[in-house]
Amino acid sequence: MITGFWYPRTAGGRSSLIPAPPWHYSGDLLTIEYRTDPARVRELLPEPLDLAPEDPGAVALIWADWQSCSASGEELLDPVRAQYKEAFAVVRCSYRGRTYSRCVYIWVDKDFAVARGIHQGYPKKLGSIHLTRPHPYGPAPRIEAGARFGATLAAADRRLAQAVVTLTEPAGNNGFVNAHPMAHHRWLPSIDKGGGLALDELIESGAAAAEGGTPWRGVADLELFEAPTEELARLEIREPIGAYYRQVGVVWDGGTLLEAKERS
Amino acid sequence: MITGFWYPRTAGGRSSLIPAPPWHYSGDLLTIEYRTDPARVRELLPEPLDLAPEDPGAVALIWADWQSCSASGEELLDPVRAQYKEAFAVVRCSYRGRTYSRCVYIWVDKDFAVARGIHQGYPKKLGSIHLTRPHPYGPAPRIEAGARFGATLAAADRRLAQAVVTLTEPAGNNGFVNAHPMAHHRWLPSIDKGGGLALDELIESGAAAAEGGTPWRGVADLELFEAPTEELARLEIREPIGAYYRQVGVVWDGGTLLEAKERS
Amino acid sequence: MITGFWYPRTAGGRSSLIPAPPWHYSGDLLTIEYRTDPARVRELLPEPLDLAPEDPGAVALIWADWQSCSASGEELLDPVRAQYKEAFAVVRCSYRGRTYSRCVYIWVDKDFAVARGIHQGYPKKLGSIHLTRPHPYGPAPRIEAGARFGATLAAADRRLAQAVVTLTEPAGNNGFVNAHPMAHHRWLPSIDKGGGLALDELIESGAAAAEGGTPWRGVADLELFEAPTEELARLEIREPIGAYYRQVGVVWDGGTLLEAKERS
Amino acid sequence: MITGFWYPRTAGGRSSLIPAPPWHYSGDLLTIEYRTDPARVRELLPEPLDLAPEDPGAVALIWADWQSCSASGEELLDPVRAQYKEAFAVVRCSYRGRTYSRCVYIWVDKDFAVARGIHQGYPKKLGSIHLTRPHPYGPAPRIEAGARFGATLAAADRRLAQAVVTLTEPAGNNGFVNAHPMAHHRWLPSIDKGGGLALDELIESGAAAAEGGTPWRGVADLELFEAPTEELARLEIREPIGAYYRQVGVVWDGGTLLEAKERS
Repeated sequence: MITGFWYPRTAGGRSSLIPAPPWHYSGDLLTIEYRTDPARVRELLPEPLDLAPEDPGAVALIWADWQSCSASGEELLDPVRAQYKEAFAVVRCSYRGRTYSRCVYIWVDKDFAVARGIHQGYPKKLGSIHLTRPHPYGPAPRIEAGARFGATLAAADRRLAQAVVTLTEPAGNNGFVNAHPMAHHRWLPSIDKGGGLALDELIESGAAAAEGGTPWRGVADLELFEAPTEELARLEIREPIGAYYRQVGVVWDGGTLLEAKERS
Repeated sequence: MITGFWYPRTAGGRSSLIPAPPWHYSGDLLTIEYRTDPARVRELLPEPLDLAPEDPGAVALIWADWQSCSASGEELLDPVRAQYKEAFAVVRCSYRGRTYSRCVYIWVDKDFAVARGIHQGYPKKLGSIHLTRPHPYGPAPRIEAGARFGATLAAADRRLAQAVVTLTEPAGNNGFVNAHPMAHHRWLPSIDKGGGLALDELIESGAAAAEGGTPWRGVADLELFEAPTEELARLEIREPIGAYYRQVGVVWDGGTLLEAKERS
Repeated sequence: MITGFWYPRTAGGRSSLIPAPPWHYSGDLLTIEYRTDPARVRELLPEPLDLAPEDPGAVALIWADWQSCSASGEELLDPVRAQYKEAFAVVRCSYRGRTYSRCVYIWVDKDFAVARGIHQGYPKKLGSIHLTRPHPYGPAPRIEAGARFGATLAAADRRLAQAVVTLTEPAGNNGFVNAHPMAHHRWLPSIDKGGGLALDELIESGAAAAEGGTPWRGVADLELFEAPTEELARLEIREPIGAYYRQVGVVWDGGTLLEAKERS
Repeated sequence: MITGFWYPRTAGGRSSLIPAPPWHYSGDLLTIEYRTDPARVRELLPEPLDLAPEDPGAVALIWADWQSCSASGEELLDPVRAQYKEAFAVVRCSYRGRTYSRCVYIWVDKDFAVARGIHQGYPKKLGSIHLTRPHPYGPAPRIEAGARFGATLAAADRRLAQAVVTLTEPAGNNGFVNAHPMAHHRWLPSIDKGGGLALDELIESGAAAAEGGTPWRGVADLELFEAPTEELARLEIREPIGAYYRQVGVVWDGGTLLEAKERS
């Protein structure tokens, strides 16, 4: 009798890289929204997804500094198993008349975050992600007008993005691009050479619970860089929308299958 | 039209963390074989797999130092994308009267290796893996009688295994535990909470082509260590079998679906 | 004309791994104090230092999660250059009738922190350091009674120390072992084989300015582990003293030479 | 009685990050030589050094993949303590009528290599260094005509240099820029703010013994990239000289003090 939420599955289940949901998160989110050419968004949306009807070229590039754990919370006390950072690009799309958010690129710095992402349909790679943290003393910023936060992303020893956000005022929300349920594909190629996809699911997922502090609005200076194995910079910056900083607590507890294609 | 072998899939396909097979490998393999309690092997074998009929408690713990690439070979020229190390535990099992090898634990140090492993049904985690390399000059060992190779494995900041192997003589092979086709499960949990498995495949896979130097036999001093999130040390060392060192070139080009269960 | 505070020194000075002081820090400190055999402290004190007259076996093991920068603050906006973590062991000693603190072991996770440490006489190695961070939302702890913080230290792929601290109540200070000016040696061996020390200074140093929040007292569960190249575990835990958590801002701006020996 | 070659110094000496010399090395060297503006070399040479009389603008950019150990060789069996990679830039200079080599920038990926470098006067930072390794099987190159080796350098999440070298033919040597004894400065700033240098030595050092395979000549495609905290790209490529690949064994066993300035 083999148990465990995912690999490696064993009799005891203790080895599984990730525990069964719910997964609990504490973290800081730096969000930068801008408009790109909608055609660049469209080319990332597989059937049956289409562009969102309003502001179809909107992109959110988000840095997050997380501590996460299972229901037991034990990972928080061995923090190498709880702490990770990520940077990800989100667009919006339309499915059966409803608008969804969709993560098109994401980099994280821990294996458990990669594994959770594959379960959730996030296209995860490893990267090196850094984000200024607020602090009540010394030179690091408080969360207040004029505070400046830096954020950087690198993968395969190349810098892919960097930003500086200066906070200006409290805001009513944390941006609109990543504010919908996620519509993600869970894909796995067939093990047979040239055999198409063994798994091809469109799923919906979102937070089961969320809390957070006052969002802050800011202005962003964002740069994207080319790299041979990345296409993030194709989502070129045509027009800034805004920037946001918010501290949040989130629970994720599964999603819903929207549709699945048969093994192709 | 979305392309790319796996995540992230894009219009151009350039972002995919892994290219389509074939995958080509150059590497050094340090293999340590020993016998554990067959019940500890049995508890890692899900239905319909059973213990191998002969020597059912045999285990191979293998360290590998790889350079890998796609058919184009371009990754070799940007070696952060080609080089990785891994350590993995292999047992044997029986399926429909045939003996297979099966990887039950594996740690690698690059994301592309994690992704390839998920495709192939290897239960990959990230780890820190080190293996002495042979060298023709200076203090590092040549591949010859008396040469000593160290090998270590750590994950989540804990050492899980360490070994020293002393070569004694050329050998006819590189061990028997990892010498069969692999019988692996490709699993993905359902996105619905408590929903069982969305993908549950038993697949067979092996090298499409292989070459290599003379294997060397040796004697091993191997230690396994306990860790809260690992069960490798349950495969306790009851009786040493042997140790082997070999340099190889391998091509992997897909596998075969043995059976698939319906979405549960 | 070569400029720059330290290596690499160039015409422009821009390459220097560390800027000239002052250095500014924002960070969180988890301090665990206990008593060991005073003989184990004594054996770490070179002449002319001696044991502190009171409580000579007291040890502080401290985890710190820092953001640091030069006077310009620019590193905070490229946080890979500002953020680092460290774990260090502090004892006390006596010099010319005055009690000093002295760091006997320290591990950090960035090169600029290594370089600053060599300037300040800290015996720095690289390590992997993790410390639970307080957070206002989600499962991570607030700074309050009952909050639990985990802390771990590893180097060379071996775990060296781990602790869980549970906060109990506000406290008047952050411990006494690390509360004095530091008495450190700045050593560099002679380049000539067997030539003794080219630099052998005893220096005093401490914060030029400091601010911080209310310290919290707690109880600690601390474990130290053996490793072939470490002697931290020789400072064995005989009797717990206490544990503390505090958020601070600090400025360091140089020290004072107490005495220097001639090239030996 | 405190012992140990360098920090941390203890009664037992076992903790020292580096053992006393001799230090033994096995490794692979990829050397790319080119000419830059001699003024860019001159500005990196402090008094009393001057430009080399012949070919004063010659630069060698060298990647090395090392296994190193103390006289006991024990580090080779715990290879996390022996293996490291480095990339470094070497120029030549003149001192009292003799030509020396001088490392002006260097990045390594292990702390023991940083510490050895500070002893030897190398201006070490941490970096991420990758170099294609030759291998007798599979897609990695043999050391032969047409073989291609990639080499990359990054620090602080930015790529600083990358190269591809194609081997053409055996050569009589491994280049001329790094072929002299090294003339390095060992500096340490005074602990007193604004106090000048506490240590200011000019030392000479070189291999105590060396062996190696046939050097190979090749052609290089080299790129240098700008970064806010690096000046490597100021050594701009005006004219290629050549490229070389060689496997070597080296022993380092101390150097000689050329001159020392008094504490300033």
